[in-house]
Amino acid sequence: MKGYAMLSIGKTGWIEKEDPKCGPLDAVVKPIAVAPCTSDVHTVWEGALGDRHNMILGHEAVGQVVEVGELVKDFKPGDRVIVPAITPDWSSLEAQAGYSMHSGGMLAGWKFSNFKDGVFGELFHVNDADGNLAQLPDTIDPADAVMISDMVPTGFHGVELADIQFGDTVCVIGIGPVGLMSVAGTALRGASHIYAVGSRPVCTKTAKEYGATDIIDYHQGDIFEQVMDKTNGKGVDKVIIAGGGNDIFSKAIKMLKPGGRIGNVNYLGEGDTVEIPRVEWGCGMGHKIIAGGLMPGGRLRMEKLASLVETGRLDLSKLITHKFHGFEHMEEALLLMKDKPRELIKPVVIL
Amino acid sequence: MKGYAMLSIGKTGWIEKEDPKCGPLDAVVKPIAVAPCTSDVHTVWEGALGDRHNMILGHEAVGQVVEVGELVKDFKPGDRVIVPAITPDWSSLEAQAGYSMHSGGMLAGWKFSNFKDGVFGELFHVNDADGNLAQLPDTIDPADAVMISDMVPTGFHGVELADIQFGDTVCVIGIGPVGLMSVAGTALRGASHIYAVGSRPVCTKTAKEYGATDIIDYHQGDIFEQVMDKTNGKGVDKVIIAGGGNDIFSKAIKMLKPGGRIGNVNYLGEGDTVEIPRVEWGCGMGHKIIAGGLMPGGRLRMEKLASLVETGRLDLSKLITHKFHGFEHMEEALLLMKDKPRELIKPVVIL
Amino acid sequence: MKGYAMLSIGKTGWIEKEDPKCGPLDAVVKPIAVAPCTSDVHTVWEGALGDRHNMILGHEAVGQVVEVGELVKDFKPGDRVIVPAITPDWSSLEAQAGYSMHSGGMLAGWKFSNFKDGVFGELFHVNDADGNLAQLPDTIDPADAVMISDMVPTGFHGVELADIQFGDTVCVIGIGPVGLMSVAGTALRGASHIYAVGSRPVCTKTAKEYGATDIIDYHQGDIFEQVMDKTNGKGVDKVIIAGGGNDIFSKAIKMLKPGGRIGNVNYLGEGDTVEIPRVEWGCGMGHKIIAGGLMPGGRLRMEKLASLVETGRLDLSKLITHKFHGFEHMEEALLLMKDKPRELIKPVVIL
Amino acid sequence: MKGYAMLSIGKTGWIEKEDPKCGPLDAVVKPIAVAPCTSDVHTVWEGALGDRHNMILGHEAVGQVVEVGELVKDFKPGDRVIVPAITPDWSSLEAQAGYSMHSGGMLAGWKFSNFKDGVFGELFHVNDADGNLAQLPDTIDPADAVMISDMVPTGFHGVELADIQFGDTVCVIGIGPVGLMSVAGTALRGASHIYAVGSRPVCTKTAKEYGATDIIDYHQGDIFEQVMDKTNGKGVDKVIIAGGGNDIFSKAIKMLKPGGRIGNVNYLGEGDTVEIPRVEWGCGMGHKIIAGGLMPGGRLRMEKLASLVETGRLDLSKLITHKFHGFEHMEEALLLMKDKPRELIKPVVIL
Repeated sequence: MKGYAMLSIGKTGWIEKEDPKCGPLDAVVKPIAVAPCTSDVHTVWEGALGDRHNMILGHEAVGQVVEVGELVKDFKPGDRVIVPAITPDWSSLEAQAGYSMHSGGMLAGWKFSNFKDGVFGELFHVNDADGNLAQLPDTIDPADAVMISDMVPTGFHGVELADIQFGDTVCVIGIGPVGLMSVAGTALRGASHIYAVGSRPVCTKTAKEYGATDIIDYHQGDIFEQVMDKTNGKGVDKVIIAGGGNDIFSKAIKMLKPGGRIGNVNYLGEGDTVEIPRVEWGCGMGHKIIAGGLMPGGRLRMEKLASLVETGRLDLSKLITHKFHGFEHMEEALLLMKDKPRELIKPVVIL
Repeated sequence: MKGYAMLSIGKTGWIEKEDPKCGPLDAVVKPIAVAPCTSDVHTVWEGALGDRHNMILGHEAVGQVVEVGELVKDFKPGDRVIVPAITPDWSSLEAQAGYSMHSGGMLAGWKFSNFKDGVFGELFHVNDADGNLAQLPDTIDPADAVMISDMVPTGFHGVELADIQFGDTVCVIGIGPVGLMSVAGTALRGASHIYAVGSRPVCTKTAKEYGATDIIDYHQGDIFEQVMDKTNGKGVDKVIIAGGGNDIFSKAIKMLKPGGRIGNVNYLGEGDTVEIPRVEWGCGMGHKIIAGGLMPGGRLRMEKLASLVETGRLDLSKLITHKFHGFEHMEEALLLMKDKPRELIKPVVIL
Repeated sequence: MKGYAMLSIGKTGWIEKEDPKCGPLDAVVKPIAVAPCTSDVHTVWEGALGDRHNMILGHEAVGQVVEVGELVKDFKPGDRVIVPAITPDWSSLEAQAGYSMHSGGMLAGWKFSNFKDGVFGELFHVNDADGNLAQLPDTIDPADAVMISDMVPTGFHGVELADIQFGDTVCVIGIGPVGLMSVAGTALRGASHIYAVGSRPVCTKTAKEYGATDIIDYHQGDIFEQVMDKTNGKGVDKVIIAGGGNDIFSKAIKMLKPGGRIGNVNYLGEGDTVEIPRVEWGCGMGHKIIAGGLMPGGRLRMEKLASLVETGRLDLSKLITHKFHGFEHMEEALLLMKDKPRELIKPVVIL
Repeated sequence: MKGYAMLSIGKTGWIEKEDPKCGPLDAVVKPIAVAPCTSDVHTVWEGALGDRHNMILGHEAVGQVVEVGELVKDFKPGDRVIVPAITPDWSSLEAQAGYSMHSGGMLAGWKFSNFKDGVFGELFHVNDADGNLAQLPDTIDPADAVMISDMVPTGFHGVELADIQFGDTVCVIGIGPVGLMSVAGTALRGASHIYAVGSRPVCTKTAKEYGATDIIDYHQGDIFEQVMDKTNGKGVDKVIIAGGGNDIFSKAIKMLKPGGRIGNVNYLGEGDTVEIPRVEWGCGMGHKIIAGGLMPGGRLRMEKLASLVETGRLDLSKLITHKFHGFEHMEEALLLMKDKPRELIKPVVIL
């Protein structure tokens, strides 16, 4: 089969590989729609995962089941499915402890285009089909559904990590596609004031549509000061970090009330450390909790998020600014994510 | 001063009382708008609190501060304020344990028209003004704001007790004003399917506007069976009880998945017991948690809920079907709550 | 192979069965030590699970692995293992939701001597060996380790359901082997006063050794009144129910402070309902949470509980009042559980 | 009255001040036993709170009530009381949000020898007597009880912040008096392996008595490596930081499993930042939660912790290595804390 792959650090291209083998619990799936992710960009051009050779890229997909293992009970060839970016080993100790995304080691629930070939091939392999696939409801557009693989669960996990409550005042830093889903999730979780930090017009407009009450543009001055101004010096109850460099944590701590929480869902690709400002962190005693985590994957998560789309709570079409048709546009779509033109939120490739 | 009072069980009328006295931490407030509550009906006509004589009724109000005690820091005469139905003693052991509504004994955070005169007087007394009043934002209509005293925090507390999560399937039983706020809060907390149980057209229409996806009409058959039908036999993740008799718990347990929760905010005024069906409760081992609780009151709660109205997350005007102007309409408004005409959700009296 | 079985309701005996088959994820295990449980008694003599024919009994065991499936990674023939009473399907939706004990349906994580043959055979089958077995540390006596299958996790789960906190005052109702583990777990979780309800001398003595501060003997008067006396009328913060009939819930609710929790781990085998007293439950608004649940099983749980024995935090030898050697004593041991002589806590059969 | 005070940075001595005034909610208390704290040393010799002039030192005390305000209900002159180091304003917004220690601003629940005179005077003032004092049980030695003011709640809060669960493997960094209480609290909360980091013989011996299973001596090599060795490369479930410089966080993150938590209760007095190692923090996605917070104070906390001493769960006498009798030894006791001789854990001055 053919797949669009990372050939080595900084190089991508089409390769031929053997079809994936289906173990007794697994499925082989043919993609219906896929999307490239900033993580693919990190993987290829920044070598975030180290050097990889001829590894098919991609971890966001919906597809059609082609083959299932003999122990698979709930899926059969022909089923149209949502595939999560994170496909845990559910019986691992980490999953039993509630952290399935770290099954087999920190971040190791992430397998596509990390430990094995990703979804940008004619076929791809899914471990534990019953545990990791979800039926794609007829009422959801496959292009929208691709957003449920990673953008929605990652953005919404920021909301969970920050533990948003009714009437909270929240700052969401970064309003690319993940941050926009954090904005939507924050509104959908009952926050009141949502300060969204970003500047590109397509993003700020969409952030408002998803529920941001105020836009904080870092070109207009220090974001900490802008947030303090808007909150009459009180700061915010919670912060979600979905973009920015490591130094954004310092601003987040400063704008947070004692008793607040930071939920980070931004992959920190560079630098040796994240620095927490001692005094504003209450000399270690301010109850400003710092949490960051990889999205929970698996079937239940996919089903629950899909049900939000089905019931009209969440409109994912706003995220998709570019639609391509045909495998041959994979490279174009990926390069869009790399180059981030001003009018881009997220591209999808429909197959 | 004059007040509209319970004279004895089954009897109400206007009485004269001395003006309330303001302790060092307290405030005396003149009502701007008030609302009668089903609890007032229980108190007077069912003797729910036992016999009370010449006790001014009412616990839902916004008002204007007339006097404050010498230790009050954040409020002054002339301030327009939201007054919660529950006004805890914040330094009590119960409040320190996180259950301020039970400060001084179970349910004893409820003071208005329970342990002392209520808000249907020319003036009323508020204990611990700094802890229990909230500034009324200019942008909120006082009639709407009265809903923040009790209807919103009670309805939303059902959501908290049931611990609604993203994508949950929820049944809300009872869609009077409290149940409607449970529907709104459930949607605002990220549920997907919301099955609202009720039948009056004004309520079912409003439930849909607040986010119900399906109406379950108990005139059309057993509500348990209807819910099981709609969920393909799976049942719901969570149930909120905001109406119905004690026997509704049995249906709630049956329709709940293992690992689910019931959040009850319905005041159970009659009967000796609530009965939990043994087998459907998993013989005591089904992880179907039963929680019920009085709304949290106090200043922070009022401020946070008001911020949801200010930012447009919650439209309270839909709750108010009847508006009266002038003290003299108090009785008429109360009798509406007693008689519950088909087109009623909630009346407000503006003063 | 031979096994000691329920032949039909009320009848037990030895039967011959084919050796269990080992699926790709499974293990076949030879028991080293087993224990009968009150549940076996319910199953056989009360028909708690309905009629079963020729089903091998038993769900508490340590054993030696005889065979493993080809996908099993962490266990091999010869390994000595602790086997939990509850062996979930870890990739099920219920497990993903945090309720693995209900994987496949309410209580369906319980498979031994329920849906398949139990551990009182020459061999028994364990589903998902990597997810459900734990290595038996050399430093733990196999007879003690059998208590980790069910008595410890069930008793400790009561502690978790009741959410014991530092300095809590707790009543543990029932001090058979499960209740004794609830006492031990309550002490080990930081409670202060522990009121243990029971009367048999062997149990009350052991309860005190495990940390009970006071014994409440129901022969000496109403247990609610005794607890109120001992707490100067304040009641307790939490109640764990590990014994008694359905009517014990009523006493538990009454003795509980508002904001308290009941954790039930007693299998309720009879009666149509559990009755909650309306007024003492705060008319549905007292924040007296009622939780009951089957023990969490699986490998991680076994490993963590075993580590408490290894580090000397928990001495399980006190639970075992009767030790038998040889398969032929299985019946004698089971009848002990049925007849409950005064000096019995728990028998073990070593093979 | 006389008091032992900070005169200015680096200088202490006896001063004369007016007797404290008792507001309507307050109490004036005469100390029975007091203890100096490392925080007093930071305050005086490191200027941790900035320059203060003639401020009476001390925040750990038990005493006898001399006067109460007219609104105080539960205490009267003559009562012997435990006084928490942290005395919140319970009706503040922060307390209503569950963070009473930050009432009035971050860390502002700490009033003694911070915003007002401390407890090293002939008399001292306590705000909100009903909310902040606890009766001293007759069965607790006043010298031991002084440990309940700060050492126990601070050490135990580390346990709460780290969210210790049954069978957890925990590293406690720092075994001065606070760290020893973290060790005791960790054992009392159900951990199994406790790795206590320290070296002074009096501390390591006491750590073992309080439940440490292993001592990690940083003189013997890198503590991260020692912990990894002891855990076969797996790391620990939780870390409590009760000592060490800011760079200890880096080691804590490294030794933590994904899904783990750090609970910090060490006051960080120096440096601009705390540095979190990016890669070992899972590039921001490892679910290694970092929490740090000031102890919760107030009456309920004092009562609950005292109940642990009353019921024999916690023996505080092991903490006290030096006892002085008489006010005149205050300076000597404080200098002990400053000089930290090898055989010191904690001194108490009995008056």
